[in-house]
Amino acid sequence: MAQIHTPADTDEQARQAGAPVVDTTDSPHAQLHPVALGDVTLSDTFWEPRRRVNQEVTLPSQFRHLEETDRLNNFRRAAGKLDAPFVGIYFNDSDVYKWLEAAAWTLAGEPNLELTAMVDAAIAVIADAQREDGYLNTYFALDRADERWTNFDLHEMYCAGHLFQAAVAHVRATGKTSLLDVATRFADHIFDTFGPEAEGKREAVDGHEEVELGLVELYRTTGEKRYLEGARYFVEARGRGLLERPYGHFNPEYAQDHLPIREVETVVGHAVRALYYAAGVADVYAETGDAGYLTALQRQWENMTGRRMYVSGGVGSRYEGEAFGRDFELPNARAYTETCAAIASVMWNWRMLALSGDARYSDLLEWTLYNAVLPGLSLDGQHYFYQNPLADDGAHRRQAWFGCACCPPNVARLLASLPGYFYSTSEDALWVHLYAEGRLETTLENGQRVAVEQTTGYPWDGEVTLSVQTEGTTFALRLRIPSWAQGATLRVNGEVVEDVQAGSYTHLLRDWRKGDTVELSLPMPVRYLEAHPYVTENTGCVALARGPLLYCIEGLDQRVDVRNLYAPAAQETLQIAASDELGGVMMLRGETVVRVADEAAYLYRDLAPATLAETERRVAASLVAVPYYSWANREESPMLVWLRRQG
Amino acid sequence: MAQIHTPADTDEQARQAGAPVVDTTDSPHAQLHPVALGDVTLSDTFWEPRRRVNQEVTLPSQFRHLEETDRLNNFRRAAGKLDAPFVGIYFNDSDVYKWLEAAAWTLAGEPNLELTAMVDAAIAVIADAQREDGYLNTYFALDRADERWTNFDLHEMYCAGHLFQAAVAHVRATGKTSLLDVATRFADHIFDTFGPEAEGKREAVDGHEEVELGLVELYRTTGEKRYLEGARYFVEARGRGLLERPYGHFNPEYAQDHLPIREVETVVGHAVRALYYAAGVADVYAETGDAGYLTALQRQWENMTGRRMYVSGGVGSRYEGEAFGRDFELPNARAYTETCAAIASVMWNWRMLALSGDARYSDLLEWTLYNAVLPGLSLDGQHYFYQNPLADDGAHRRQAWFGCACCPPNVARLLASLPGYFYSTSEDALWVHLYAEGRLETTLENGQRVAVEQTTGYPWDGEVTLSVQTEGTTFALRLRIPSWAQGATLRVNGEVVEDVQAGSYTHLLRDWRKGDTVELSLPMPVRYLEAHPYVTENTGCVALARGPLLYCIEGLDQRVDVRNLYAPAAQETLQIAASDELGGVMMLRGETVVRVADEAAYLYRDLAPATLAETERRVAASLVAVPYYSWANREESPMLVWLRRQG
Repeated sequence: MAQIHTPADTDEQARQAGAPVVDTTDSPHAQLHPVALGDVTLSDTFWEPRRRVNQEVTLPSQFRHLEETDRLNNFRRAAGKLDAPFVGIYFNDSDVYKWLEAAAWTLAGEPNLELTAMVDAAIAVIADAQREDGYLNTYFALDRADERWTNFDLHEMYCAGHLFQAAVAHVRATGKTSLLDVATRFADHIFDTFGPEAEGKREAVDGHEEVELGLVELYRTTGEKRYLEGARYFVEARGRGLLERPYGHFNPEYAQDHLPIREVETVVGHAVRALYYAAGVADVYAETGDAGYLTALQRQWENMTGRRMYVSGGVGSRYEGEAFGRDFELPNARAYTETCAAIASVMWNWRMLALSGDARYSDLLEWTLYNAVLPGLSLDGQHYFYQNPLADDGAHRRQAWFGCACCPPNVARLLASLPGYFYSTSEDALWVHLYAEGRLETTLENGQRVAVEQTTGYPWDGEVTLSVQTEGTTFALRLRIPSWAQGATLRVNGEVVEDVQAGSYTHLLRDWRKGDTVELSLPMPVRYLEAHPYVTENTGCVALARGPLLYCIEGLDQRVDVRNLYAPAAQETLQIAASDELGGVMMLRGETVVRVADEAAYLYRDLAPATLAETERRVAASLVAVPYYSWANREESPMLVWLRRQG
Repeated sequence: MAQIHTPADTDEQARQAGAPVVDTTDSPHAQLHPVALGDVTLSDTFWEPRRRVNQEVTLPSQFRHLEETDRLNNFRRAAGKLDAPFVGIYFNDSDVYKWLEAAAWTLAGEPNLELTAMVDAAIAVIADAQREDGYLNTYFALDRADERWTNFDLHEMYCAGHLFQAAVAHVRATGKTSLLDVATRFADHIFDTFGPEAEGKREAVDGHEEVELGLVELYRTTGEKRYLEGARYFVEARGRGLLERPYGHFNPEYAQDHLPIREVETVVGHAVRALYYAAGVADVYAETGDAGYLTALQRQWENMTGRRMYVSGGVGSRYEGEAFGRDFELPNARAYTETCAAIASVMWNWRMLALSGDARYSDLLEWTLYNAVLPGLSLDGQHYFYQNPLADDGAHRRQAWFGCACCPPNVARLLASLPGYFYSTSEDALWVHLYAEGRLETTLENGQRVAVEQTTGYPWDGEVTLSVQTEGTTFALRLRIPSWAQGATLRVNGEVVEDVQAGSYTHLLRDWRKGDTVELSLPMPVRYLEAHPYVTENTGCVALARGPLLYCIEGLDQRVDVRNLYAPAAQETLQIAASDELGGVMMLRGETVVRVADEAAYLYRDLAPATLAETERRVAASLVAVPYYSWANREESPMLVWLRRQG
């Protein structure tokens, strides 16, 4: 199938061969195909420094956490090399796998001997722990061996899925099959054990989706059709009451076991489960073309984006069950909005984009990346949010690690693989989804090599220049015009291109010559966003945005309490001001009014009987807003995304 | 101690002897003392019809539920009279006890042969199930007998406490000791088993508070000092790390085991636990006078009412853990606000009132009763809310029963005992806390008999006339002037009394003659309430209230969507209009504006760059508000307490 059937002899060869993040290269029902991660070089001041921190700070510090919290020791114990009890939560193996995936994508970008040593050591430990029959889970390794596959909510298949993703990343990035061998042995065990009763197998549903997309990627990497069959089986198994154990106080919706896939209308239950599932279903669709899958995914996407998503792109509003709430149930201070759910949304949207080439998916992917994933990581690369509230009193702070540490390595693997999300190819086109200073050098589907340079200050500035570096290639350049970029303009070699539509891709088909330039101008005024009136939590409020960035106000930037501040009456009065703070950001500054209140004395109080406008005294005040992703990186103070609206 | 040391021969005698709801008659540190429940007759059109429904519909229907859900069968099984498995949740015994308490208070009011038969039959079943050593819990009766007292989160003491409350109510109301005998045997078992290690006992903390207040009331009824000692032990045991079992993902705050009582500053954790505990601590204080207890309770009360309470008086905002949230964490649509927590708040405030005679406690007691307890019960008396949101899309409906059925019998016992909350006595005074047409006939602490009639249309009308029906009694009449009744006036025999302060009690000391009248006039304009700005969910909103009632708007009363409606610019323009709907209520009607929006198309959208006031089109509309307690009694429609504010 894909590029990595034959392992390369050296890391360098593998990198040349490329490492597509989600390999839809040969998927019959995908419109877009990936470029190799190594084909993309970022040299910008926004993402590349973060990827550098990811490599130099985040990955080593996470490896230390994996050791110090006995996550690697659990494997050593399972291998009989350590006499100690299992430590931690039953799904802790998955953190090791996600870290490995992050490390692998990092190695796809450039050699790193130290990281390679850590990766190889971890893989050796993992391989040692695998059972004769291919089974691999350290929680069920020794004393609990009898309990294997007895409770499908104990994440055995979830961990397997992450192993498969890590193995795929590892072989694509390095050409080495050491982890892939472990993965395929486990996948074979699962395929032989579970499936239709008619085939003499045991019926099962995984309690936390993940194995589906892992199996499809394993199929794409190995060409083994049975992995795709397995993935399809697990998708089809849901909604038929197979999930054996009741979920305590949770209902079947919690694990998306309430309906067969073709009947699903809404996003429900545990948000990460729901969106890993959606991503897995999209992966199976890409290979099989089952129309019922696609329409079910589209319905869920409409429901999520139209009813169950925060303005940040974050999803899963409920603490209980880490779950999607009802339509318009989007409390701000008590938003759950797990970082992993945002990452899952990026994964799902990336697959929907590949299936369709529809800009609404890349629009949401970008917005989610900046405003829902990135807040999950501190600027220092060592602290993480599990929950991402949209209002806070100052107490919510990032942590160095968690008992349930799903989010940290999840952020790391997304950042490591990020270059893979910038471009795609299709039969006659080169697609540009994301903007950042950097370079692409890849082979188009017609076999021609092409190199393109991006020059831009994005996301702070909307001017993007693409210059073609190669001679005589014919393709359609499909640039994403973000939906927020009303009034965007485009010039090819200085000549204005008409009919540039926000929320779509251009279609600039021509024979490109070396030195051709495309100048895209994306207007970035300050924008006020309002929420649907059914989101009662946001009544009378506006949110601030500019370009692809959502803004918020933090107490330490103001002279008055953020909760008494009004948004300026007109968004044009807000000034865009560069600041060295927060790693370098554009702040928004403006004059506005603040509510005068004696706040200590009451929780509720009578308004004097006069017109409402007369009962509130407001005085002039200044306001400073910062990008939402950067909040809580300085001293503690209250934060708000939704500001009081004047008038 | 109290009135019921010698059992009466007949129910009628017992009723004459009286049945104080919380018997602080001889409590050395209580300022106020109860009147017997049977001394109070309600003849109003608000509460009395509800109490009638409680007696005639609610109690019989709940008894059927207790039978049909095997709650009574669990006792028969424990007694060896039924060969069947235990059915339901481990604390289901408590529902039977709470129902018995409700039935007992009902019998204190008037004879009811049918109800007496049900009560006696249930008590016989319970007595049969008690173990030789006094232990009584049907979950641990047979197959789980070895697990007794091994996990203090399995509510053995919680059930015991409810048994004690039921037994106390039963003997006070009927004079019969059949349930009291069961209760004291169990209490003796607990006292002998648990206590300071130095006394050769086992240290323990109850996982769900309730046993404390049950033991104090048992002490008050029997005079047995060891029950008070036991209660004090359980209070002192908290916050010392004794709670053996970890609470899964919950922390010690969940069960108020985080700090010793004297160090507690805030209301935390599971709301019902927290407030039953507070009530129990107040009960112990009433008997012991430990100043550290009282100041800890006052701090918690300030924190709850100033930071962690809904405008309805409801408390416990979090679904996860049914718990208090952080300061100002008060989401509306996702309010948990358990009906039981509101009842617990009434119980606590009643005790704080008895300790102090401070009107702020009776103010909150009344407000909570009307606006947080009463919404928990349907007008038909057979459907219940467990959670009480302050905004809803129409999907939240009352249920006939619950697997965890704590709320239904809790509402029933409060309604059954309600007359006992109207009046108190103190050394020289008669206190009037609540207003409703009816009559009190009681013996003051100086031994004089006094009869007083209340004539009023309260809560719909603020005119209250009290007329003294007895001759020549000297006492201070202490009428509560509600805190919302700014401008209240008072006349005694037509003569104006100066200096009537809202939020306090009058002090009308005189030699009262038969025919003396006191006319209290409580202004009831429509009021707009605003929330503290830190309650970000209520930014830009007002709530409507009149007298002791909070109002809301329901979709079916409007021509436009409630979520687009603004409150009228001035509250005086709202008309107060009597309606036959909803069992007879005063509705609020007025002209206002509504936001014009094309709602289907977006979840978030850009506002056009103009002044905010110009971007929203509003047109004239009518608004109808109904009392919040009456919501969701008609067809499904969205509901809002907090309305958009103009200006």
